[in-house]
Amino acid sequence: MDRLKDEILQNGEVRDGNILKVDNFLNHMLDVELLGEVGKEFYRLFRDEGITKVLTLEASGIAIAVLTAQQFKVPAVFAKKVDSQNLDREVYTSKVFSYTKGLEYTIRVSKKYIGKNDKLLLIDDFLADGNALRGLLDIAKQSGAETKGIGIVIEKGFLDGGKALRAEGYNLKSLAIVERMGKEGIVFRD
Amino acid sequence: MDRLKDEILQNGEVRDGNILKVDNFLNHMLDVELLGEVGKEFYRLFRDEGITKVLTLEASGIAIAVLTAQQFKVPAVFAKKVDSQNLDREVYTSKVFSYTKGLEYTIRVSKKYIGKNDKLLLIDDFLADGNALRGLLDIAKQSGAETKGIGIVIEKGFLDGGKALRAEGYNLKSLAIVERMGKEGIVFRD
Repeated sequence: MDRLKDEILQNGEVRDGNILKVDNFLNHMLDVELLGEVGKEFYRLFRDEGITKVLTLEASGIAIAVLTAQQFKVPAVFAKKVDSQNLDREVYTSKVFSYTKGLEYTIRVSKKYIGKNDKLLLIDDFLADGNALRGLLDIAKQSGAETKGIGIVIEKGFLDGGKALRAEGYNLKSLAIVERMGKEGIVFRD
Repeated sequence: MDRLKDEILQNGEVRDGNILKVDNFLNHMLDVELLGEVGKEFYRLFRDEGITKVLTLEASGIAIAVLTAQQFKVPAVFAKKVDSQNLDREVYTSKVFSYTKGLEYTIRVSKKYIGKNDKLLLIDDFLADGNALRGLLDIAKQSGAETKGIGIVIEKGFLDGGKALRAEGYNLKSLAIVERMGKEGIVFRD
């Protein structure tokens, strides 16, 4: 998606530890118009999959999941990272290690909101080692739902998350795949 | 907003500790079509305020803020609750106590993304005692931006948050104000 790549080249900041900072449109300030285009692109890519729900994780996935679900005219569900009095006791859980935050956390989805009749599109902002996505896939599997597609905004193609998921047969599409990044800039995979 | 009130009456669950659980459309599963109507209603209410940005808190505010910002054709910014390597060091911060989660946390907004030329619409899913909103207002004030409006989906009218903010002159609009709730059901303010 050219417009997304242009935005990353123009405003993305590469930091130590394989961090690509895209705070100005994806992770803190949200360019709702650009993310609306991202949602339309995911719809184009997965429209024939019979998607019944879009599943993501709080917090950075929510904006993209909502704007994608809007195209599919289905609900979005976000896995919760923080336990809350408001959450059901009947939940699917999975453990995820976050490199950017340096901690392990538990994600939770109420058993009410995904089940064996669902065909899921999993959405996330970034794919690096794939830990967060593995957590979502684990929860999808526990629920009996079918994962029909995985839509990622930015994949760090120099890490193994995407490669492994594709090798396992997942229908994974990333709108921008960073081949390498560093002081010399950001290079995308064709 | 009648459709919102109908949804709350049909699917909201009242729990001990003044908890109103609306997980099936607002806080966990997201009814994107209904929340799109919420965004349109906020636009109708605040369209003449010259809004330049929509400001909210992660995580539950994001979906509504995005669908509202879509109507205004402006960016949304969400305050972060968790510190991250990805966040700028130059941030506005404020402390918020959450009754539902039983803890105090710090919210952060990068100084890059709101400033003295902004006219803000603050958005949140719930207004109870107003602690989260006070944190956002504090950050807005630090930035020099003008808070032109506050849009709330569900206000707990039996608590003092909304009353105090209105007395201070804020242009606060809540789409559903719960007058009382309990085993006998939920009653809205007219």
